[in-house]
Amino acid sequence: MTERRPTPSGVRAAADRIASEVTRTPLLPLDHEGRRYWIKAECLQRGGSFKLRGAANRLAQLDETQRAGGVVAFSSGNHAQGVAIAARRLGVKAAIVMPTDAPRVKVEATRAAGAEIVFYDRETESREAIGAALAEERGAVLVPSFDDVDVIEGQGSVGVEIEAQLGRRPERLLVPCGGGGLASGIALALPGTQVLIVEPEGWDDMTRSLEGGEIVPVAEPAPPTRCDALQTKRVSPLTFGALREAGARGLAVSEAEVAEAMRFAFARLRLVAEPGGAVALAALLSGKAGPVPEGTVVVVSGGNVDPDVYAEILSGASNG
Amino acid sequence: MTERRPTPSGVRAAADRIASEVTRTPLLPLDHEGRRYWIKAECLQRGGSFKLRGAANRLAQLDETQRAGGVVAFSSGNHAQGVAIAARRLGVKAAIVMPTDAPRVKVEATRAAGAEIVFYDRETESREAIGAALAEERGAVLVPSFDDVDVIEGQGSVGVEIEAQLGRRPERLLVPCGGGGLASGIALALPGTQVLIVEPEGWDDMTRSLEGGEIVPVAEPAPPTRCDALQTKRVSPLTFGALREAGARGLAVSEAEVAEAMRFAFARLRLVAEPGGAVALAALLSGKAGPVPEGTVVVVSGGNVDPDVYAEILSGASNG
Repeated sequence: MTERRPTPSGVRAAADRIASEVTRTPLLPLDHEGRRYWIKAECLQRGGSFKLRGAANRLAQLDETQRAGGVVAFSSGNHAQGVAIAARRLGVKAAIVMPTDAPRVKVEATRAAGAEIVFYDRETESREAIGAALAEERGAVLVPSFDDVDVIEGQGSVGVEIEAQLGRRPERLLVPCGGGGLASGIALALPGTQVLIVEPEGWDDMTRSLEGGEIVPVAEPAPPTRCDALQTKRVSPLTFGALREAGARGLAVSEAEVAEAMRFAFARLRLVAEPGGAVALAALLSGKAGPVPEGTVVVVSGGNVDPDVYAEILSGASNG
Repeated sequence: MTERRPTPSGVRAAADRIASEVTRTPLLPLDHEGRRYWIKAECLQRGGSFKLRGAANRLAQLDETQRAGGVVAFSSGNHAQGVAIAARRLGVKAAIVMPTDAPRVKVEATRAAGAEIVFYDRETESREAIGAALAEERGAVLVPSFDDVDVIEGQGSVGVEIEAQLGRRPERLLVPCGGGGLASGIALALPGTQVLIVEPEGWDDMTRSLEGGEIVPVAEPAPPTRCDALQTKRVSPLTFGALREAGARGLAVSEAEVAEAMRFAFARLRLVAEPGGAVALAALLSGKAGPVPEGTVVVVSGGNVDPDVYAEILSGASNG
């Protein structure tokens, strides 16, 4: 049996399928140090991150029986909101398994979108086990946050929009990476574009997997990070495979570089970026991405952050 | 002699003239309390506010001799940045007269855009006199922040974009109002749209002027306000005239309502709105604008705010 894999044509079909449900987020110019770059502002997406795209594409393909059983997902918050919004639109029940330490703003928004929330302890419980048990018990469909062909193809619609907005494929693109759903979807959408994935320091498993040619998990113990959206301990063969075939490379940025990028997004772009959403911008601004060509596209993937955390970062009280 | 007045065709010509220099800012959907509204996010404009539009339209029409003499403007910050950015692009020198209490972020951005800054004391000095003297001394052209046909027509390009993005003219539109350049330009661009202008409490001179049928200044002493961009003590016959002919009406919002709107823009729109930029959103959210129809457009006109002020508002430490 040949397992289904995400494809460029699948990404284009997804982009068409979900076009009426997602915001075509703006590609904003950024003039910085004499060069023009482009910011794909996915923080302006409905639900505050790109996650609605994959969820909408997955849920659109459920049959009547599956819709009646509802959906289950586990997520620290952005995928949660994406699934909740997509489910409500289709009149499908959604239960979301969230860690007790998820940002409050993400918990509240997920609840406001009409989903039931089931909490788990990130340290002692397995969200995969809880999610699977819930799905089994209810006859619900589990919607993975990245290890799923439809989800990856949905996220790839970001790349389809970038090409349409720019009028061509960019030479280079910087994108945040947790499980790799967004990055791999975009890589499929934009063949020929050099994709650079960016992770938080200590959580750079996709970077090391791409370097080594095989999937390696996050090295334990992983350091604390404010990038809750990127705390994925092991990527999937689907996302890793697509990125490896695209010749993508990776790099890691520090918490201080992320905080600096969030302050830059505030002052220069007037965009609210969450920590995990700002890592690619941090790679550009810190110089860690090296000299990047004019016209490079930087994806700001999300903007859901607790106001007190944001206020603390703005005040510079903490760079970490 | 018939004085030149801003016109709908002038607005459309301005929109074409400046199209390559300004960002076509997104019109973002906002689903709130069961209705869909649209946010015109001018805080994402280059320079962080709509002001580049009017400045670019004015400067594009200077002749060679005028360009050689440079330009002078007075502004608490947004017009300053608009003029500075437009001037740099044309290789024209710009001197900006700014109050000593202007937000630091606006002063720094204006300087970063290459303009010379001349400070004045808002309490004891007249910026008009300083600006006029500077212009005279240098043979420079004074670029008014709102009392100018080309400036008004440039700002009106916001309305031209709204119609194109929405595919029709909106039934109703809420827009922040200081001197009225943006509001009157949009009213000219969108005949038939009910324009509701919004001002800070105590600074509602355009509202009272529209009610009374003649220009009345701000009543002294005017209360303190965080809406530095809207601290205009007297509107102009050009802006008042266009709004009166359009049948526009006005209303005022409190500082607490503005703070709440800024927090909403942060959490729900992931947009950084400055106090003056958030007044129209405040009018919608507070209910002060009354029941507004589906499809109402709300202009968020700027996003330049000092990080410490923003952090304080986010933390809710102060509602005032």
